[in-house]
Amino acid sequence: MNICVAQLNYTVGDFEGNTNKILAALDSARAGGAELSVFSELALCGYPPEDLLLQEGFVEEMERCLEKIIKASSGLFVVVGLARKNPSNVGKRFFNSAAIIENGSLLGFHDKWLLPTYDVFDEGRYFEPGTSCRTWEYKGKKIAVLICEDIWQHAADLCGISYPRDPVEMLAKEKIDCLINISASPYHLEKLDLRLQVCRKTVQTLKCPLVLCCQVGGNDQLIFDGYSFFLDTKGTALQIAKAFEEEICIWDLNQIKPSPYQYLLPAEELFSALVLGVRDYFHKSGFKKAALGLSGGIDSAVVSCIAVAALGKENVLGIAMPSRYSSSSSLIDAKALSSNLQIACEEIPIEAPFETYLSLLQPHFKDLPEDVTEENLQSRIRGTLLMAFSNKFGYIVLSTGNKSEMALGYMTLYGDLCGGLSVISDLSKGQVYELAHFINRHQEIIPFSTIQKEPSAELRPNQKDSDSLPEYDLLDLVVHAYIEQGKSAKSIAKENNLEISFVQGLIQKIHKAEYKRRQAPPGLRVSQKSFREGRKVPIVQKWE
Amino acid sequence: MNICVAQLNYTVGDFEGNTNKILAALDSARAGGAELSVFSELALCGYPPEDLLLQEGFVEEMERCLEKIIKASSGLFVVVGLARKNPSNVGKRFFNSAAIIENGSLLGFHDKWLLPTYDVFDEGRYFEPGTSCRTWEYKGKKIAVLICEDIWQHAADLCGISYPRDPVEMLAKEKIDCLINISASPYHLEKLDLRLQVCRKTVQTLKCPLVLCCQVGGNDQLIFDGYSFFLDTKGTALQIAKAFEEEICIWDLNQIKPSPYQYLLPAEELFSALVLGVRDYFHKSGFKKAALGLSGGIDSAVVSCIAVAALGKENVLGIAMPSRYSSSSSLIDAKALSSNLQIACEEIPIEAPFETYLSLLQPHFKDLPEDVTEENLQSRIRGTLLMAFSNKFGYIVLSTGNKSEMALGYMTLYGDLCGGLSVISDLSKGQVYELAHFINRHQEIIPFSTIQKEPSAELRPNQKDSDSLPEYDLLDLVVHAYIEQGKSAKSIAKENNLEISFVQGLIQKIHKAEYKRRQAPPGLRVSQKSFREGRKVPIVQKWE
Repeated sequence: MNICVAQLNYTVGDFEGNTNKILAALDSARAGGAELSVFSELALCGYPPEDLLLQEGFVEEMERCLEKIIKASSGLFVVVGLARKNPSNVGKRFFNSAAIIENGSLLGFHDKWLLPTYDVFDEGRYFEPGTSCRTWEYKGKKIAVLICEDIWQHAADLCGISYPRDPVEMLAKEKIDCLINISASPYHLEKLDLRLQVCRKTVQTLKCPLVLCCQVGGNDQLIFDGYSFFLDTKGTALQIAKAFEEEICIWDLNQIKPSPYQYLLPAEELFSALVLGVRDYFHKSGFKKAALGLSGGIDSAVVSCIAVAALGKENVLGIAMPSRYSSSSSLIDAKALSSNLQIACEEIPIEAPFETYLSLLQPHFKDLPEDVTEENLQSRIRGTLLMAFSNKFGYIVLSTGNKSEMALGYMTLYGDLCGGLSVISDLSKGQVYELAHFINRHQEIIPFSTIQKEPSAELRPNQKDSDSLPEYDLLDLVVHAYIEQGKSAKSIAKENNLEISFVQGLIQKIHKAEYKRRQAPPGLRVSQKSFREGRKVPIVQKWE
Repeated sequence: MNICVAQLNYTVGDFEGNTNKILAALDSARAGGAELSVFSELALCGYPPEDLLLQEGFVEEMERCLEKIIKASSGLFVVVGLARKNPSNVGKRFFNSAAIIENGSLLGFHDKWLLPTYDVFDEGRYFEPGTSCRTWEYKGKKIAVLICEDIWQHAADLCGISYPRDPVEMLAKEKIDCLINISASPYHLEKLDLRLQVCRKTVQTLKCPLVLCCQVGGNDQLIFDGYSFFLDTKGTALQIAKAFEEEICIWDLNQIKPSPYQYLLPAEELFSALVLGVRDYFHKSGFKKAALGLSGGIDSAVVSCIAVAALGKENVLGIAMPSRYSSSSSLIDAKALSSNLQIACEEIPIEAPFETYLSLLQPHFKDLPEDVTEENLQSRIRGTLLMAFSNKFGYIVLSTGNKSEMALGYMTLYGDLCGGLSVISDLSKGQVYELAHFINRHQEIIPFSTIQKEPSAELRPNQKDSDSLPEYDLLDLVVHAYIEQGKSAKSIAKENNLEISFVQGLIQKIHKAEYKRRQAPPGLRVSQKSFREGRKVPIVQKWE
C-alpha cells in the first residue's frame, strides 16, 4: 500500500492557496498510485494561525475548505489538519483536529489531546483537548492518527514535558498497522534527531510503522524544516523527505530497506533554514528586494550571503555608510563582498548628517563629553538612510545583529536594530563564524580579512567589541545556560568555575536590554530558545 | 471580626521589596485590630511574573519569602498569593497558590483551579490547575479562599469564558461565613463594574459575604486598578478601596451599611490609570525624567499632562521640532502648553538635518517625486533627536501615538514610534479628546486651539489626517468591532450599514500595519483588547 506524504509550504490564513495546494497533491497522490494521502497539522490555515483563529469567520472558512477536500478525495484515504469548532458549550471554542476522509466521505476527526502551551506554543489559548482516541479501518488495515505533541508525552524524558495523559499508551492495547502523525513542529538546530528519538519510543510501544507528515516553510519568526519520515517497527528511518523544501513523497508502506539519504551538516542546515526563513518572509508578504547596511564586518557579510541565496543577487542591495571612525579596510571589505556576491552596492558617507546633528545638539549638550549618544547617532543615521531606501524603492531592510549582541544590548535601538527582519538574531557569534566558513567552503565569498579581523562597531576611535563585551565564548556560554537552559547565576558560576559576580553582571545586562529587544525586528528562530518568539519576560522587574 | 485587606503595589521579581511591604502590612493589621490579613494573587513575586517563573531559583526564592511571612503572622489568619512547586511529576511545574497561614503556622494552600489562558493571560503556560477546594476554620468561622478567575466561571455568561469546572459550585454545598478572593485582575475601562457583577453571582450562590483583595500598580503594559471590595450576602458593596492607590483597609466583617464611596468619572479613571502606568514604568525601573516631542497637537499635549501628573513638572521636557511644513500656530501651541504646565521646552528646528539627508539621497532618488519617504525622514529626525536627549541625559522618551493611528499604521517606525513607553496607544482619538476636556475641566491647560484645530501630521504642505484616514468616528467603530469584538468584515458592514469594501479596506490596512506595531514601544493597556499585550497575530498572512 502506497502513502502520499505531502510536505507542503502553507501561508497562514491563505485558505484559497493552501486548499489549492492540497487539491493538487491529491491529484499527484492518485497519479503516483497512492491509496493514502496525508497533510500536516492545521494545513488548511497554515501553522501558527495565532489569534486569527479568534476572528469571526476564520474557522468557518476552514470548514468550507474541508468540504472541497472531501469532494476531491475519491479513491483515497485522506488525513488533513484543520481547526474545527468545539460542538460543546464547555471549554475552549475549537479543536486542533485531523479530518479523516475516505473516498468522498468524512469518517470523523481526531482531536489533538496534548496541546503544547510553552515556549513558542500557545495552543491552550485556543483549543480544547480531545478526549477520544480511536483507530480507522481502511482496506483491511487498522490506522491510527495522532497530531504532533500527542506522541511526545511518550518520550517525555527527552523533551521536558509532562502531561497527565498519553495517547500512545491508550493505543497500546490495539493492534495497529500504521500510525500517522501529522505535525507542525518548528525547527531548531538538529531537531530531526530529536524527532526521530521521540518517534522511536512510539513505534517500540505500538510495534507498528509510523509516518510523520511535517509542514515546511517560514511563517514569521518560525521556520518549519520539513523532514517528514517513515519509520519501520524497529524505528529505522526507511524514508526521510527533503529538508526545507516542499516534497510530495509517495512511499510504499511495505518497504523493508532504508532508502539512502544525504543528511545536511549542521552549518548547511542552519544556512538552509535561514534562507528559507528569509525567502518566505519576503515572498509570502509580496516583497522581492532586500537592502542592508554593509559594514565590512562578519555579521552583515553572512546576512548578505543568506539574502542572495534567498532572493537572488539582483534583489539584494548593500549600502556602505562609512563614518569618520570607519577604517579604510572596512569599506574595501564591504566592496569586495558585494563584488564577490555580484550585488549592487551604494556608498553613502554619513559625515554630513552626523555633523549637522552634532551642531544642532551642541547648544544643548554644551561641553559634555562624547559618549554612547554620539555612537548611537551614527547608527541611527544609518538606520534612517536604509529606511529611506526602503520607503522609496520598496526594499525590506534586513537587520544584522547576532544573538550575543542581542543578549547584552550591544546594538542601537532605531539604529542597527532597524529592519523588517532580523536574520541571524538567534545565532551566537560563534555560529556566525561557522556559517561564514560554510559559505566560503568552495571559494572566498566573504573576504578573509572580514573573517580574520577583530570585531568592532567602529563608532569611536579604535573601538573593539572586546572593550565593552566579555570574550564571546564566555558570553555565549552564559547566554546558553541562562536563556536556553533557564539555569540560575549560582549554578552557571559553579558548573563553569566562573565568578558569581561576573555571571550576575552578565545576567543583569541581559535583563536591562529587554526594552531594546522588545522593539527589535522579528527574528528567525533556530535555537531552542530565541530572545523573541517563545520568550516572554517583563521589561520592568527586579529579579537578578 | 476585622479583616485587613492589603491593596499593595508590587514590583515583579522584587522579592525583598514585596516581602517587606507584606510584613509592614501585617504590623498595620495588628495595630488596626484585624484578625485576618489578606494579600493579592502572586503577591510575593508581583503579577505577571511571566517566564521569570521558569528561571531556576525564582520560585524557590518565593518559598523562602513565604517562610518569613509565616514567622511574622502571630495573632493573625493570613492569606497570601505565591507560586509554589507542583510536588507531583505530572503536569506543569507550578501551582498558582494562596498560602493559608494561622498564627505562625502554615495551614495549607489553595491552588488556583481556573487558569486564564487568553487575552493578556498565559497561566496555562506555567501552572497546573488545582483540584481540591476546601474551607478553613478560624475562630469559629468557616472561610473559603479562591483565586481570581476561580469565581469567574460562575458568571461565565458575563465574560465569555467556559471552563469545565466551577469552584463556586463545589463550595455551594458548604455553609461558608466568608469567601476571600485574592486577585490580580488587570484594568480596562470600567472594569470595576464587571468585577462587581461577577462577584454578585458568587455571593448569591454561596449566600456569604465576599472580600476581594486586588493588586494595584503598573507592571509593564498592564495597569492594576486596585478597587478591592467587600460585598455583603446580597451583593451590596459595603466597602470599596481606593482606585489606583495603595491602601491598607481594615474592614469590619460585621458591617451592615455601605460606607459612602466617591466613584471616578470615566475620563478621570482613564487619566488616573495612565498616570499610574507611567509613574510605575519609570520609578520601578529607576528612571525619573521623561522627554517627548511637542507638535502642538492634541496627542502630545495629553501625554504631557499625564507625564506631569505622573512624574512632576520638573521631570518632563518637551521638545518642539518644527519643520518647513510646521505652521507657526503649532509652535505657539506647543509653547503655550509647556508654559501652562510649567515644563521645560526646547526648540530644535529640523530643517538642517532634513536638508542634509535630502542632498545625501538626491543622487540615489534623482528626480523621483517626494512621497512618504520624505515625510518619514522628518519623523525619524525627530526620533533621533529625542533619543539623543535620552542617551545624553537619561530621559525615557514617551511615544504619543493613539490607537486609531496604531490601527492603520499612521505613524512612522523609528520616528514618532520612538520611545520607551507609548502612553495613549490604547486610546481612540475620541478618547484622547475626552481626556483633553477632562484635563481642562478647571482651566485651560491644553490650549483651546490645540483642541479645536483639525488634526495634521504636518509632514507635507497643507496635510490633514483626513487626507489619509477615514473620519475618526468611523475608523474607531471598525477598530472596536474587529479588534475588541473579533467580528468579521461582513458582520461589521451589515450591523453598521457600511460598504463591505470600505470595511475590508480598513481591516487590510490594520493587518498591513502589524509589522510596525510589532516594533512599537510597549503601550499601556486600558481597553479590553489592546494592539500590544494580549493580542498575537502573524505579520505575514493572507487572511482578509
